[in-house]
Amino acid sequence: MSVAAKIKTGMAEGSWIRRMFEEGNALKQKYGADNVFDLSLGNPIMEPPEEFRRELKRPAENPEPGMHRYMENAGYAETRAAVAQQLSAETGLGFTATDIVMSSGAAGALNVVLKTVLNPGEEVIVFAPFFVEYLNYVDNQGGTSKIVPTCKDFLPQPGALEAAITPKTRAVIINSPNNPAGVVYSVECLRSLAEVVRKKESQFGTQIYLISDEAYCKIIYDGLKFPQVVLHHPRTIVLTSHSKDLALPGERIGYVAVHPDCDGKKELIDGLIYCNRVLGFVNAPALMQHIVRKLQSVTVSISEYQRKRDFLYSALTRMGYSMVKPQGAFYLFPRSPVEDEVAFVRSLQELRVLVVPGRGFGTPGHFRVSYCVDDHAIEGSVDGFSKVARKYGLPG
Amino acid sequence: MSVAAKIKTGMAEGSWIRRMFEEGNALKQKYGADNVFDLSLGNPIMEPPEEFRRELKRPAENPEPGMHRYMENAGYAETRAAVAQQLSAETGLGFTATDIVMSSGAAGALNVVLKTVLNPGEEVIVFAPFFVEYLNYVDNQGGTSKIVPTCKDFLPQPGALEAAITPKTRAVIINSPNNPAGVVYSVECLRSLAEVVRKKESQFGTQIYLISDEAYCKIIYDGLKFPQVVLHHPRTIVLTSHSKDLALPGERIGYVAVHPDCDGKKELIDGLIYCNRVLGFVNAPALMQHIVRKLQSVTVSISEYQRKRDFLYSALTRMGYSMVKPQGAFYLFPRSPVEDEVAFVRSLQELRVLVVPGRGFGTPGHFRVSYCVDDHAIEGSVDGFSKVARKYGLPG
Repeated sequence: MSVAAKIKTGMAEGSWIRRMFEEGNALKQKYGADNVFDLSLGNPIMEPPEEFRRELKRPAENPEPGMHRYMENAGYAETRAAVAQQLSAETGLGFTATDIVMSSGAAGALNVVLKTVLNPGEEVIVFAPFFVEYLNYVDNQGGTSKIVPTCKDFLPQPGALEAAITPKTRAVIINSPNNPAGVVYSVECLRSLAEVVRKKESQFGTQIYLISDEAYCKIIYDGLKFPQVVLHHPRTIVLTSHSKDLALPGERIGYVAVHPDCDGKKELIDGLIYCNRVLGFVNAPALMQHIVRKLQSVTVSISEYQRKRDFLYSALTRMGYSMVKPQGAFYLFPRSPVEDEVAFVRSLQELRVLVVPGRGFGTPGHFRVSYCVDDHAIEGSVDGFSKVARKYGLPG
Repeated sequence: MSVAAKIKTGMAEGSWIRRMFEEGNALKQKYGADNVFDLSLGNPIMEPPEEFRRELKRPAENPEPGMHRYMENAGYAETRAAVAQQLSAETGLGFTATDIVMSSGAAGALNVVLKTVLNPGEEVIVFAPFFVEYLNYVDNQGGTSKIVPTCKDFLPQPGALEAAITPKTRAVIINSPNNPAGVVYSVECLRSLAEVVRKKESQFGTQIYLISDEAYCKIIYDGLKFPQVVLHHPRTIVLTSHSKDLALPGERIGYVAVHPDCDGKKELIDGLIYCNRVLGFVNAPALMQHIVRKLQSVTVSISEYQRKRDFLYSALTRMGYSMVKPQGAFYLFPRSPVEDEVAFVRSLQELRVLVVPGRGFGTPGHFRVSYCVDDHAIEGSVDGFSKVARKYGLPG
């Protein structure tokens, strides 16, 4: 066998996002890209903001000596200082450059964090629906994922969390705004989760990290202010990327930030830096570190995304689809009109509309619609959604 | 404990390169950077070639829509085609874009390869002296490193390889030009190694990959032509980065290339792409992929490095140090004049000359001198090398 047995299995199971992507490509070849309405991928259609263009021109026109060399594995001190300053302003906490480790996107960041804290077989709690790669990342780093369902509104329930925490629990991943549900966790929700964690830490004499994946924290609607996860427990590790806020997903630039008052912070951060190196990331890409340094307070146009959300949410709701109105990220996560959502997704696919089955996010019976796509795809999908709604007994 | 037990141990053991780097920083703060002669790090002093500047200006001045978005996890098809074309020209083999996976440097590439092929507990043969991170990478991906010493000339011996291969051997890492020894493996050496691998594969009924880390393959002296590793066994996986040839170590851009005639190639490459995603690299940085596409035949000035090598090799040899004259990379790896090379390195350190003990590369009794540094550091180190030579009974 040319690959390891586990890799062969992993590939065969595939990811639903990936599978839809590939099947979508086949459809596009057959019918032409313009005739396929692909709402399956979280690949933002938006271009980076003007400020990014400006910052990219600076090093291109006035290169500084050594700007592409290795730097500290944690990243440039100036970039980390800029991140710390912005985070301090947003949270009211006193982050400093030494609390930050620049990373290869949020995916790199999460692998680094998990490798740093997980002893073999320790458990990581993941709320469903979840970004499916979490399970791979926990597995990469020798941990065990423990999936905890949420309620109808996709908010985690303190009772369910309490029941799931064991003496082997090492971390709880929080993802607000949530991919795929788009929900933003409220202050009350976060407070009650942190309370449960503290209670169980004290009961078991353990240390549990809240790992806050904030990849979508700037993509937030209706004038809502992002309820900061980091304020509720000092053992919080924030990680994020500039994939969504600056529309740079291909560039792999993000960071890890440790709560300034975290117990054993120095050792933890040294561990993160060590793991950033040892896992082969080495450091976040140098040029992007130079560029994002001056863009910490910049975000793509949220109103554009909000407009797309409103259009699609209204259209689908009118057809009889039922869903939570998302306040963040760029996904809808409606209930499938038929229990087997894969059948539903296949019906849509026949009409050249691509979405992802909820089981791809640990939550069958739903489907994910990505609206970070161009208006042609969104508008073109409406007819398909309507026809399939009628097929399954909705008004359509 | 704020970090996992294994991470705590790993950090405490540290890497010698890292330790010297940190102690060097302390010395620089005390004496001023100009008064410390740091030959400890492989962080090329050279700037990227002019062609790189040109290619960086292109996207900065004429950004193309979508140029920072996700692409296929394997990387842009155009970039992979350019890599394949260059590799085909260099090797005479028929590489195509589908044989290439763009990676986050050679470090990312090696982790991806190892995750793809290693079943738990399978063995990876590493020749000493070796780049110390190999051991971490093998461990990350669930394998066991099996260290095989080389002879005085630092070339692997077929007999030693044959004795080391077991039914659990899954891969042999080859690193020519070698870090830290600077030696370039000859065609005869490579041929005999490949022969041994074939023999043992057939004896054990196993499939063994030759993983060729070619990070330094363009940094080669005396008009030597790089003896291609890939020509000797179809189960060869080449990996490299543009850290050295284009002086871009901070940018994390490299690739994996699979021998066009490798058994099970499709599955292997699908596995590499899958692991690139699952490990959290996702894809090689987008902008650098655009840039290196047109730079596949470009290299920094090798004559500069050769001049530095010649200067330092002559100086040290004159003082009585004994070493193989390196034909590649940018390191010397002399024998320590005293068995305990750490004592020797400490003596040098007292004179503010920084090098790395050979045990940091699995080869005690030697020390590594990096000459990819500015002339001030090289020239400034001569006095210290001379004094310490005399201290240990060499002419000096």
